[in-house]
Amino acid sequence: MAQKNKEHKLAINNEPSKKRSKNMAVRSDLTPFFEPKSIAIIGAIKSPWFGGLVTLNNLKNLGYGGRVYLVNPSYPEVEGIKVYPNVKEIPSEVDLAVIITSSRAVPEIVRNCAEKGVKGAVIVADGFAERDEEGTKLQKQIVEISKQTGIRLLGPNTIGTVNPYTGLITSPYPTGYKSIRKGGVALVAQTGIIGAQAFPFEDLQYGISKICDLSNKCDVNETDLLEYLENDSDTKVIAMHLEDVKDGRRFLEVARRVAKKKPIIVYKPGRTSESKKALASHTGSIAGDHKIYQSAFRQVGLIQVNSFVELFQVAKAFAYQPLPRGNRLGIITISGGAGIMAIDTATEWGLVLGKLSDVSNEKLFEVHPTMVGNPSDIGPAMPTLQDPITPYKKSIEVFLEDKNVDCLLITLYAYPETPPELYTRFLKDLQFGKPTDKPVVIWIYGPSNDTVNKICKSLEAANYPAYLDIELAVKALGAMYQYTQIKSKLT
Amino acid sequence: MAQKNKEHKLAINNEPSKKRSKNMAVRSDLTPFFEPKSIAIIGAIKSPWFGGLVTLNNLKNLGYGGRVYLVNPSYPEVEGIKVYPNVKEIPSEVDLAVIITSSRAVPEIVRNCAEKGVKGAVIVADGFAERDEEGTKLQKQIVEISKQTGIRLLGPNTIGTVNPYTGLITSPYPTGYKSIRKGGVALVAQTGIIGAQAFPFEDLQYGISKICDLSNKCDVNETDLLEYLENDSDTKVIAMHLEDVKDGRRFLEVARRVAKKKPIIVYKPGRTSESKKALASHTGSIAGDHKIYQSAFRQVGLIQVNSFVELFQVAKAFAYQPLPRGNRLGIITISGGAGIMAIDTATEWGLVLGKLSDVSNEKLFEVHPTMVGNPSDIGPAMPTLQDPITPYKKSIEVFLEDKNVDCLLITLYAYPETPPELYTRFLKDLQFGKPTDKPVVIWIYGPSNDTVNKICKSLEAANYPAYLDIELAVKALGAMYQYTQIKSKLT
Repeated sequence: MAQKNKEHKLAINNEPSKKRSKNMAVRSDLTPFFEPKSIAIIGAIKSPWFGGLVTLNNLKNLGYGGRVYLVNPSYPEVEGIKVYPNVKEIPSEVDLAVIITSSRAVPEIVRNCAEKGVKGAVIVADGFAERDEEGTKLQKQIVEISKQTGIRLLGPNTIGTVNPYTGLITSPYPTGYKSIRKGGVALVAQTGIIGAQAFPFEDLQYGISKICDLSNKCDVNETDLLEYLENDSDTKVIAMHLEDVKDGRRFLEVARRVAKKKPIIVYKPGRTSESKKALASHTGSIAGDHKIYQSAFRQVGLIQVNSFVELFQVAKAFAYQPLPRGNRLGIITISGGAGIMAIDTATEWGLVLGKLSDVSNEKLFEVHPTMVGNPSDIGPAMPTLQDPITPYKKSIEVFLEDKNVDCLLITLYAYPETPPELYTRFLKDLQFGKPTDKPVVIWIYGPSNDTVNKICKSLEAANYPAYLDIELAVKALGAMYQYTQIKSKLT
Repeated sequence: MAQKNKEHKLAINNEPSKKRSKNMAVRSDLTPFFEPKSIAIIGAIKSPWFGGLVTLNNLKNLGYGGRVYLVNPSYPEVEGIKVYPNVKEIPSEVDLAVIITSSRAVPEIVRNCAEKGVKGAVIVADGFAERDEEGTKLQKQIVEISKQTGIRLLGPNTIGTVNPYTGLITSPYPTGYKSIRKGGVALVAQTGIIGAQAFPFEDLQYGISKICDLSNKCDVNETDLLEYLENDSDTKVIAMHLEDVKDGRRFLEVARRVAKKKPIIVYKPGRTSESKKALASHTGSIAGDHKIYQSAFRQVGLIQVNSFVELFQVAKAFAYQPLPRGNRLGIITISGGAGIMAIDTATEWGLVLGKLSDVSNEKLFEVHPTMVGNPSDIGPAMPTLQDPITPYKKSIEVFLEDKNVDCLLITLYAYPETPPELYTRFLKDLQFGKPTDKPVVIWIYGPSNDTVNKICKSLEAANYPAYLDIELAVKALGAMYQYTQIKSKLT
């Protein structure tokens, strides 16, 4: 199955390359980093908690179906597996090398890889431009080798890539889990905390298409990634953490093209001069003025968020829900106060409160007078009706049917001992047979963490994005509306 | 025990009243709302999931030690408990009434309460100024009764108060748990989602001193609450959600006075004209210009946050940790990228990166060269040393000892199968015998939700505030530094 998927994607990925100049096609083809048929893990292999043996174990866990070779000149085998002294002695083709060793050894290894015909190398090793002058020199050396030989380099100082569709994972850290859910969210970052070891990707109900830690970006950069993901049919939404941009002109050009097809959400630190200084020393690059970034990003249709958490939480709404047609928000709330908290963020993201039709208001009035209007406050209805479900069901039905509402925020209360499937069931019932084009996001709260978490999981398994922070829920809808606008402007 | 506590506090609360004018003391004495010796629950009593029977059950769960009476003219008993037809027929004194009935019945009940000598009434009933003209009239009627008779009114449309120290709870909703941790955080809001039914107060490691839902504020308002909490020895920090301010001049005067003694954190929606409109219809009041609020709040020393989640998450840092002496932040990070994410928020809250002493840098260098400096990046040290603990321990020790650091952010990685107590133990070890005056906040991440949650709980049980959002962790430190400045300016 994975194999079939892979070939399918390879075909797609090769197609657009023809349209580009030959050199461009070669420079941007990142297939070996995400769909290698064979991998050589080179360097530190023995430790059970960091290095090549861990990578190997991660690959096994995720069900990687390709060939994997271990390379280290110091020992002939580890845990019964043959270890080659040099990548060049591996008897068959190697698509991808994962290099986990001290920085000084890297240039020679990269050269060997290039001579072997390895197409790409993930350089996990640190101690390059991010460290000191010596490291900067070493980084220049490997870039030179890449230019001479055509081998592509990811990193250095990276944990590499993940492709849940083929079971590929290059991380040298243990993840503690056995699978990553397949889905449409591509995660790209200039830090290892995007990696499989950092977040509970097994628990997250929205699936992942690709993960990539760009880190030092000595060769492969954010624009290459965008071009790769543009044509990756598994990727529906791109979430990107950027510390800087390597080639601004090309990035903006490509971003504009890709943004027409897929939403690109960007979190870029560096709002303050203090953090710009720190950025310079982290990956050895100079970050430009933040306002210029913001303005340029906006012009080419990137959706900008302000924190790492937002990057994930906004992306998931795109993964779960359709885009809204317009900006008219409906709010169904069990608490008048919560409804109001949502409005500030909504307004800041360009949403307005939809004005319900008279028919809708009449239907709501029939259930309970306080439910009339938008936000529809169902709180007072509950004690009166002695029934927590009817007010939810009726109001959601009315809002989904009303032509003056484009998207919906529901605040859900997880009362003690709520069956985890309760809300999911009736949300599904409501949409049965008539898939809606109105995105729904949910804020959930209640007195039991356990119940809240279980309901979240059930909702997200059914494609309803659930949030523990009401502002974040609204922000996600706002970002979706922003993308609706971007699409209509760009195309 | 609860009884003893109560008397102790009553003595404290009465003391400062003497210093005020007699009238002021009477108007602001909210003791009956938080420390009543006896309660009458009036109105809807029978339902097992909303109303007086639930309130009674909540009181039992939290161990309320005072007398509780039920009042309803329609039946003589419920579940074997005597029900009085009228509050006036209760044979002994009643400090507090909790009125859960239709709005039209409320004026007469309030009058009866006043005649009985009840000192305060929590009006859970809705359908007042927040609803319609008739409700506005009814609200005016009860305010009139309050003015004539001196009975104080909380609400209407409120779930009332909680006092974990005496087991008091007036909420008509089931909480699903048996206790609320006692502590120093007072929560005040103009919405029921502050209530015991809304958040897992049993799980939260920072304890609660008082909870109050102000709602319509027909009588008791935010300023009364501030005056009460000013002298409540259990309250160390006040977190307040405000939709509007009833008497601006008095509020600012009192807020300035209280802010000298205790940090007051405020979240006020209404940044946009859309939400101001909604505010007007929620509690029937007109919200003024947000910028004027912001500026006035700043002048009197209120710490302002931008969301409901922040209100809780910033308050908890004050509850757990000492105030910083200055604004020099230390960052210990396992990820260079994460360290940088922290700096933007830090700068925006007035924090700067402390410059470590040469001695400190030498000590860090001894462990691993990458650890030198601030942020101290301990990530690269871990694979090298094959030891995740030493880099943490050493760097934390160095930062706590360095005189150029006033406060500390630690990013903790919960690697798979981390024992939940691991970090807590060594943090405790480091501070053993030498309590520090440097606040520490922690951002934690990892591939298992379960492990992360367990470590959070362990850390917070040991008074280290833990966050799943790095910006929020820094914001909490920033708010603490802001309060250090406020204290030095106001006093």
